[in-house]
Amino acid sequence: MQTKITLDESEIPTHWYNVVADMPNPPSPPLGPDGKPIGPEALAGIFPMGLIEQEVSAERWIPIPERVREALSMWRPSPLYRAHRLEAALGTPAKIYYKNESVSPAGSHKVNTAVAQAYYNQQAGIKRLATETGAGQWGSSIALAGQMFGLEVRIFMVRVSYDQKPFRRSMMQTWGGQVFASPSNETQTGRAILAKDPNNPGSLGIAISEAVEEAASRADTNYALGSVLNHVLLHQTIIGLEAKKQFAKVGDYPDMVFAPCGGGSNFGGAAFPFFADKASGKRVRLVAVEPTSCPTLTKGEYAYDFGDTAGLTPLMKMYTLGHDFMPPGIHAGGLRYHGDSPLVSQLYHEGLIEALAVPQIATFEAGVMFARSEGIIPAPESNHAIRACIDEALRCKESGEAKTLFFNLSGHGHFDMAAYDKYLAGELTDFYYPEAEIKASLAGSPKVG
Amino acid sequence: MQTKITLDESEIPTHWYNVVADMPNPPSPPLGPDGKPIGPEALAGIFPMGLIEQEVSAERWIPIPERVREALSMWRPSPLYRAHRLEAALGTPAKIYYKNESVSPAGSHKVNTAVAQAYYNQQAGIKRLATETGAGQWGSSIALAGQMFGLEVRIFMVRVSYDQKPFRRSMMQTWGGQVFASPSNETQTGRAILAKDPNNPGSLGIAISEAVEEAASRADTNYALGSVLNHVLLHQTIIGLEAKKQFAKVGDYPDMVFAPCGGGSNFGGAAFPFFADKASGKRVRLVAVEPTSCPTLTKGEYAYDFGDTAGLTPLMKMYTLGHDFMPPGIHAGGLRYHGDSPLVSQLYHEGLIEALAVPQIATFEAGVMFARSEGIIPAPESNHAIRACIDEALRCKESGEAKTLFFNLSGHGHFDMAAYDKYLAGELTDFYYPEAEIKASLAGSPKVG
Repeated sequence: MQTKITLDESEIPTHWYNVVADMPNPPSPPLGPDGKPIGPEALAGIFPMGLIEQEVSAERWIPIPERVREALSMWRPSPLYRAHRLEAALGTPAKIYYKNESVSPAGSHKVNTAVAQAYYNQQAGIKRLATETGAGQWGSSIALAGQMFGLEVRIFMVRVSYDQKPFRRSMMQTWGGQVFASPSNETQTGRAILAKDPNNPGSLGIAISEAVEEAASRADTNYALGSVLNHVLLHQTIIGLEAKKQFAKVGDYPDMVFAPCGGGSNFGGAAFPFFADKASGKRVRLVAVEPTSCPTLTKGEYAYDFGDTAGLTPLMKMYTLGHDFMPPGIHAGGLRYHGDSPLVSQLYHEGLIEALAVPQIATFEAGVMFARSEGIIPAPESNHAIRACIDEALRCKESGEAKTLFFNLSGHGHFDMAAYDKYLAGELTDFYYPEAEIKASLAGSPKVG
Repeated sequence: MQTKITLDESEIPTHWYNVVADMPNPPSPPLGPDGKPIGPEALAGIFPMGLIEQEVSAERWIPIPERVREALSMWRPSPLYRAHRLEAALGTPAKIYYKNESVSPAGSHKVNTAVAQAYYNQQAGIKRLATETGAGQWGSSIALAGQMFGLEVRIFMVRVSYDQKPFRRSMMQTWGGQVFASPSNETQTGRAILAKDPNNPGSLGIAISEAVEEAASRADTNYALGSVLNHVLLHQTIIGLEAKKQFAKVGDYPDMVFAPCGGGSNFGGAAFPFFADKASGKRVRLVAVEPTSCPTLTKGEYAYDFGDTAGLTPLMKMYTLGHDFMPPGIHAGGLRYHGDSPLVSQLYHEGLIEALAVPQIATFEAGVMFARSEGIIPAPESNHAIRACIDEALRCKESGEAKTLFFNLSGHGHFDMAAYDKYLAGELTDFYYPEAEIKASLAGSPKVG
């Protein structure tokens, strides 16, 4: 009874998969402040050309540089698990598989793109990276990647996570990163927000504004983003590409793929390579799972909006709750983002992928059940995919269907034990964002076209 | 340039290796309160017969039950890494390899024996396990293993670690374990110690007394120990056995093996399978690395002493600092033990293995260097082996020797970031235990024969 489906180091994919090549319509372009499409040159102030080319590429396969593959080989290929114990605990006829991205040194999938971004920036002669982080998974990933490629890394960490997760900060510092609670006094954006509200809990949108401001104002500094953008999702496709090889090894294939969805890189990384098959006629359902407290796909509007709070980024066509939407301080910090990847958004808008929202307490219930059966304590973000997958497995129990279900275990919860403590003590709360507040927030956002 | 040397799930060893078969002299027997050797039946009140048989066995190979191999396959075989980046950072001609035991769900090697112990207890019809934990690595491992085999687990956690590492407690609770700060009010031993000193920081010796008292006083409850005993070291030999297969795959073999040494299971697990080769004439040096704050092998006495503080265990012939020795609250909680494995002690006494002690600050310096080059943030215990290995690699740099060095990365430091914080802030201290205090402590310990 095989539990772990592994690949050899030589089987690490040699190319990333670009979903744009298989989309029925070309992606909506990003727009400048004047409402006109911007070209690659507009991004050159904060990104290296290697990444900009990937951002706008329509090529199906993009080669992974040898030094990036070498860096990835520290923890990749990651194992695919058949969750025999979870299936037994649920009493379901469904077969459950998960990709274990928690095996990376930073503990999540985020480092898959971090090493690629650090590589291209180093090649371009950049000395410093500025970035934001929510739960700290991205921040620790880019701190490690910066260390590997000799770059200084400055990280703006959403204050509510900075306070909830002091040890994620220590982790970044152990890898040599510099960490600031955002909103911070390091930037004009941060200072302006603190002047109005010294206790502002921060958001990914604010932290992005701070990092972009710093990158735009210094020639030696570029910006690095942990999700949302096309090139970030591209780098994460290594997850789904490996998973497909692993499914082939055991002669199985998923009926449904579940991944958490905040900015979209988790979902894009796990699901897009399966979309390639769907585009060629294969039946496979791809499900993005988000929190009810930040229901971007399920309650947001498909419109042009800024990626950050201050409006420094280009306008992107995406599902959004409004760029100054302030989600509550839930424990899945990585899913507290007002917008979503334009690629994920477009596929959802065109009915090619699905989305659902789950409340916080139910996600931790699923996470504890998973930990007690499969051993690994999942990140709160991952618990969203686990919840959706367990719900489907329970439906299979009702119907008797032996579906093959696959989810992305995007990270471990070693830095989230305070949240588990609260769950076990019955102190967690659910949050369903009132539609009126979403509407009010959207009213303040631009809607071009 | 291969980084990670992996094995297939089918290559998980089918047998544990028992070093007793290759020792030049039989192990000194444990003694009862009357100073006479005790037989297996004396242990039957707190251990299942399956484990007692292993405790006294002289068979070289002991089969691993299929259900234990299946449980181990959740994370095993663990990868062997060639530390190319660390070698480059040191500029050494030495080749450095490490076994990555941090990939287990509980984050350390401890779970290798936890699943075996839970299995044999379940087979014997036991419902509850009582145990102690220092740093929390053992406690979390046995909580997980208990959950996997349907046993209730009660854990006495050394108070100083309980306070330093609240999230290890959360981890045990997430897996369903019950955790008490030791000394506790749950046992007579604990209550007596608290009556004298309500602020007693605890020690492994005290926590063992509490767990043994509980196991001895209830028929449905057995005791589980995370180190020291022969069967525990036996279960850990899976580490070295896998490593040997992995070295064979790349056509290399270590000149020196380094492992942290507290109770001895980390060292025994990594080194004993290489001792088998040494016993047949192969040149390989086996080095146990301990903290200068608890220098059992390097400053202790080889004598009969109790395994616990209250004197409830049989007398064991081992290196000891005296059974009421109270080591300072260093961050490598797993190495704060007054005694050592009788098997490790006897091999050391007979000059067949080596030992050295390293101070705390130097171990964290090594750990941060390792984290910045190899990516993984190590457990403070593991940092001891890393320090010793780096020192040897630096000697190779002087001498120009291209030695092959191997160490056991026994666990990750995700629950030790407060210690890294202190190191980075320059707030850690070193501690060299004064010989006079060791002598005074030893004076109060029995020395039979």
